[in-house]
Amino acid sequence: RTLRIGLIPGDGIGKEVIPAGRRLLEALPASLGLKFEFVNLRAGFETFEQTGAALPEETVSVLRSDCDGALFGAVSSPSTAVKGYSSPIVALRKKLDLYANVRPVKTVLTAAKPIDMVIVRENTEDLYVKEEKTYDTPEGKVAEAIKRISQRASSRIATMAGEIALRRQKIRAAGSPSIHRGPLVTITHKSNVLSQTDGLFRSTARDSLAAARFESVAVEEQIVDSMVYKLFRQPEAYDVIVAPNLYGDILSDGAAALVGSLGLVPSANVGEGFAIGEPCHGSAPDIMGQGISNPIATLRSAALMLEFLNEEAAAAAIYAAVDANLEEGKFLSPDLGGTAKTEEVLHDILRRL
Amino acid sequence: RTLRIGLIPGDGIGKEVIPAGRRLLEALPASLGLKFEFVNLRAGFETFEQTGAALPEETVSVLRSDCDGALFGAVSSPSTAVKGYSSPIVALRKKLDLYANVRPVKTVLTAAKPIDMVIVRENTEDLYVKEEKTYDTPEGKVAEAIKRISQRASSRIATMAGEIALRRQKIRAAGSPSIHRGPLVTITHKSNVLSQTDGLFRSTARDSLAAARFESVAVEEQIVDSMVYKLFRQPEAYDVIVAPNLYGDILSDGAAALVGSLGLVPSANVGEGFAIGEPCHGSAPDIMGQGISNPIATLRSAALMLEFLNEEAAAAAIYAAVDANLEEGKFLSPDLGGTAKTEEVLHDILRRL
Ligand SMILES: CC(C)[C@H](C(=O)O)[C@@H](O)C(=O)O
Ligand SMILES: CC(C)[C@H](C(=O)O)[C@@H](O)C(=O)O
Repeated sequence: RTLRIGLIPGDGIGKEVIPAGRRLLEALPASLGLKFEFVNLRAGFETFEQTGAALPEETVSVLRSDCDGALFGAVSSPSTAVKGYSSPIVALRKKLDLYANVRPVKTVLTAAKPIDMVIVRENTEDLYVKEEKTYDTPEGKVAEAIKRISQRASSRIATMAGEIALRRQKIRAAGSPSIHRGPLVTITHKSNVLSQTDGLFRSTARDSLAAARFESVAVEEQIVDSMVYKLFRQPEAYDVIVAPNLYGDILSDGAAALVGSLGLVPSANVGEGFAIGEPCHGSAPDIMGQGISNPIATLRSAALMLEFLNEEAAAAAIYAAVDANLEEGKFLSPDLGGTAKTEEVLHDILRRL
Repeated sequence: RTLRIGLIPGDGIGKEVIPAGRRLLEALPASLGLKFEFVNLRAGFETFEQTGAALPEETVSVLRSDCDGALFGAVSSPSTAVKGYSSPIVALRKKLDLYANVRPVKTVLTAAKPIDMVIVRENTEDLYVKEEKTYDTPEGKVAEAIKRISQRASSRIATMAGEIALRRQKIRAAGSPSIHRGPLVTITHKSNVLSQTDGLFRSTARDSLAAARFESVAVEEQIVDSMVYKLFRQPEAYDVIVAPNLYGDILSDGAAALVGSLGLVPSANVGEGFAIGEPCHGSAPDIMGQGISNPIATLRSAALMLEFLNEEAAAAAIYAAVDANLEEGKFLSPDLGGTAKTEEVLHDILRRL
């Protein structure tokens, strides 16, 4: 099978980690039967400055009609609002209807406090619809934004969370060592304040997870503030967490803090038959150009993309190579307390494939 | 001076900790020159079941016309939406225009990793305006909520944050040992997505903190997801954090996780000349009735209330007694790994006053 992959480095260290992702895919053992073709695509703040569009139409149309998946690096946000600029990844998620943002957060099993969870974030609505307005009042300006929650989006994200819980269970049943026993989905919301919007998310998620297919999946709930508290106090208790867009954004950064560095945490933006791998870290202008960015979030994001393109064997090979690198701990980038360059970390992982 | 204090235990362990708060106030040394009168008031889910109103009009009017401050315990949220019920504390904050929710989170100085920060949460608007609607579409239900941010509320909360930073600086300058050097306010928002609403919060907070009065206060910003990440990675770096309502809610639970137990974390709902002390923990029905709830969050909330009623000496006496109890560590409640009952913890603190 030949997969055509769009490469969108974006800004800052996106330009260092996306090439590492490409080299990883090219280095996969021939026995996996995968070939890759790459298409270089543009997006980001630099692109905005050069072309007037943070997400050129061409990028969207090539991804839509000509690619099986993509890797997206990171984009810089301007430090004050810039007229006409808005985040290209948020737009891309909506335009391609990549309705799930899947963020696995795990330590190696040998960690002092092992954790292994996946945050499944709704990726198209909530406050991210970005419908805002500002008006004047005698007491000054007032601005409003719409938080929109639909039954449709809540249902499919909850179903995705259930499927992921089942898949994880299957992998465990196949003998993969794990800290978890049963599949569990935790629904996060704030329906004690937002009874209609978050109430709809909660009840729809409950309904979707009550399907016969998910009979073996335990379902729990946490109010978002309490979820953040629990995340820090007993992270080992969580398997799959499903949340509306904004809470998912916040929770995944919180979970990332638990594993030591954002540089380890991958994500995939997943739609019907299409997935974009995206490291959770940002464009990190402070370390750009020094060749010290951690490529692992991107390598794991490439694996995650492959998983959602049904190439589970290739994904497993990548995860194993990355875990072996981390467990040995000889080639670690500075964010993990090591001194290895991006190139050395990548090299150590490629040789383990 | 005689202070009239409303007591609103609410539900669950609210009924155990608010009486402890009352006894603390009664036990303050006569040398402080304070007398207290107490008014028992009702609110909460039990009140709702008995009277049909979670926040009886009488509670609001007595607080408004007849009290200098109040202590609020906790309320139970029904586990599924109950028609006509909505959170009385959220309503109270709005009705009395208690525009600031102040949440100091600190360890004792001798902690392995000492932290000492205050989260200053806007308390009247954002998604907490609870303006929601639901409609049907061919694809199912859709619900919307309004997130409202005003220049007026953003300005006064930022000013409050600045004042608190200055006050903390003054206490440090007076010789109180501390982990911080200079006053710092960190503005939290998500203006990279919500350019108008969070953009207004951000620019208004910046403007307010640029006042000559705050010349000595350093001002920084963090996007909310990154703030949660930083909160876990380097909490010692933060002094005062100011945030819109919902982010403040989430951040304060996150910060509470860092100090070991929600049972330690106080808050005050502050308006012009009025303050309600409120422990950050909930009604904890699981431990109710066993006499093991931690009274410290409430005792510190009583101190915080006194601070905002300009009784700083009384507040300082309470903080010192609580810190001494924690530093000795002989009478700790189960949430802190101890075996002491509410009564024993309270007794140990009262004898230190
Ligand atoms: C850059 C920003 C718009 C984005 C988001 O909020 O989704 C980022 O935080 C993320 O999590 O991918
Ligand atoms: C109970 C709930 C409505 C409340 C809130 O969200 O404000 C609580 O979480 C708090 O922080 O005081």
